[in-house]
Amino acid sequence: MSLEKVSENKCFAGRQLRYSHQSAVLNCSMNFSIYLPAEAGSHKVPVLYWLSGLTCTDENFVTKAGAQQFAAQHGVAIVAPDTSPRGEGVPDDADAAYDFGLGAGFYVDATQAPWSQHYHMYSYICQELPELINANFPVDGQRSSIFGHSMGGHGALTIALKNTDKYQSVSAFAPIASAMQCPWGEKALSNYIGTNKEDWRQYDATELVAKAERQIPMLVDQGTADNFLVEQLKPVLLQQACDAAGYPATIRMQEGYDHSYFFMSSFMADHIAFHAKYLK
Amino acid sequence: MSLEKVSENKCFAGRQLRYSHQSAVLNCSMNFSIYLPAEAGSHKVPVLYWLSGLTCTDENFVTKAGAQQFAAQHGVAIVAPDTSPRGEGVPDDADAAYDFGLGAGFYVDATQAPWSQHYHMYSYICQELPELINANFPVDGQRSSIFGHSMGGHGALTIALKNTDKYQSVSAFAPIASAMQCPWGEKALSNYIGTNKEDWRQYDATELVAKAERQIPMLVDQGTADNFLVEQLKPVLLQQACDAAGYPATIRMQEGYDHSYFFMSSFMADHIAFHAKYLK
Repeated sequence: MSLEKVSENKCFAGRQLRYSHQSAVLNCSMNFSIYLPAEAGSHKVPVLYWLSGLTCTDENFVTKAGAQQFAAQHGVAIVAPDTSPRGEGVPDDADAAYDFGLGAGFYVDATQAPWSQHYHMYSYICQELPELINANFPVDGQRSSIFGHSMGGHGALTIALKNTDKYQSVSAFAPIASAMQCPWGEKALSNYIGTNKEDWRQYDATELVAKAERQIPMLVDQGTADNFLVEQLKPVLLQQACDAAGYPATIRMQEGYDHSYFFMSSFMADHIAFHAKYLK
Repeated sequence: MSLEKVSENKCFAGRQLRYSHQSAVLNCSMNFSIYLPAEAGSHKVPVLYWLSGLTCTDENFVTKAGAQQFAAQHGVAIVAPDTSPRGEGVPDDADAAYDFGLGAGFYVDATQAPWSQHYHMYSYICQELPELINANFPVDGQRSSIFGHSMGGHGALTIALKNTDKYQSVSAFAPIASAMQCPWGEKALSNYIGTNKEDWRQYDATELVAKAERQIPMLVDQGTADNFLVEQLKPVLLQQACDAAGYPATIRMQEGYDHSYFFMSSFMADHIAFHAKYLK
């Protein structure tokens, strides 16, 4: 598991770093970014994992979210992985559509050919990548939380709800609340996992809320002017699932905000402060 | 001077807007971005002009600088124009080099063919664009300041020093301190203005410091790990000019920072707070 540094930039007195490595789980070379606050020079810091949405790489969040400021303020590291396996040998959607294949791993472990050779983003995010991070950087893996946007919000919620021993808190911006009940999720799950919908439940946040072994703190922000709100994201389904399960989530509708980083940056301070509270 | 709205995104309770318009001075269609804080809904707000560096459009600053947060906090608008005239009829560098022609207007009024037909970024920034902004947005043009990066830092300093009645304060990140004394500036000035170096002095910050009619507040930040520091930027020349002229500028060397938006975002709060102090 050798790491190759791609870039390093000083940022808010800490370091914004980018690395490439060979992933055994994904069977390809992957890039990830990590921000280390200044404190990481003297002691281990807690770590936040960020999962991006459709079409993104590890770089969108790093350049657009304005998160380093708050990571520096609270003394937490932020790891931003890519959104799918990458490279010439990795199959893509037949039409190179934006919502499936490259840039659209959906944070699941694919079981169907040809996807099952590479598309294991679930295991990459909750096992291989944290092991790599914990072994190579001054972070305290016992203090980890996870958050994400859209497809990555779905990833953060499902991964956290299935691994409540591994994450102290979870948050999401405009998450796909129920992958089973929207066109993006139906396309991805039927191809990656197969057509038996029983198998899809393990990757659906609304299904997992009631099954969580521990009710870890959850914060969700959703813009009311988001073009994907009604057809794809459906936060009301997550709210209903939390209400039914007695899960004390904070799900906020933010008036007039859309699906962009302009929305996310506006509430980034809140999300990182939320996680920092449980990581300290 | 009709304006066409290209996009609008809610951001930190205000609005990030993008427009296109036909520029008479540049003889082509141009895009610009403007951030309006929430206060602009009820009264006129002060306005900050941002000038970007080589290769940028109006969008780099908007997506990467993290400035909206501080504009919202201080209740100031920020206008971000493009860095050169644009379009099929606009001549470019013969080799399409990054440092001359499109994306590299250098904030001068070209006098040499074929550049003189379109390349009048100086007049665009200090006359046409403010008139357009003042006429169409809830800003108080009497309270204007200007800042920029690299080529745009050179633009901000030279424009402010020549128009001390128009700007309340000026700041720059890693500016080209003396366009006459670096390869980027020599290439641009000789082509846009001609080979008589006497004509270049009007576009050189170090030359203008002593000639400023008013010593408006000036802040400059420069990273010590900036690849362009020694050959192109030369902040020591600006410091010497300020010392010689008794101009009380604050020129700070920032240890370990480079030429990127990771550097700029780290000190964006300082710069906007600096301007806000003089705009209120």
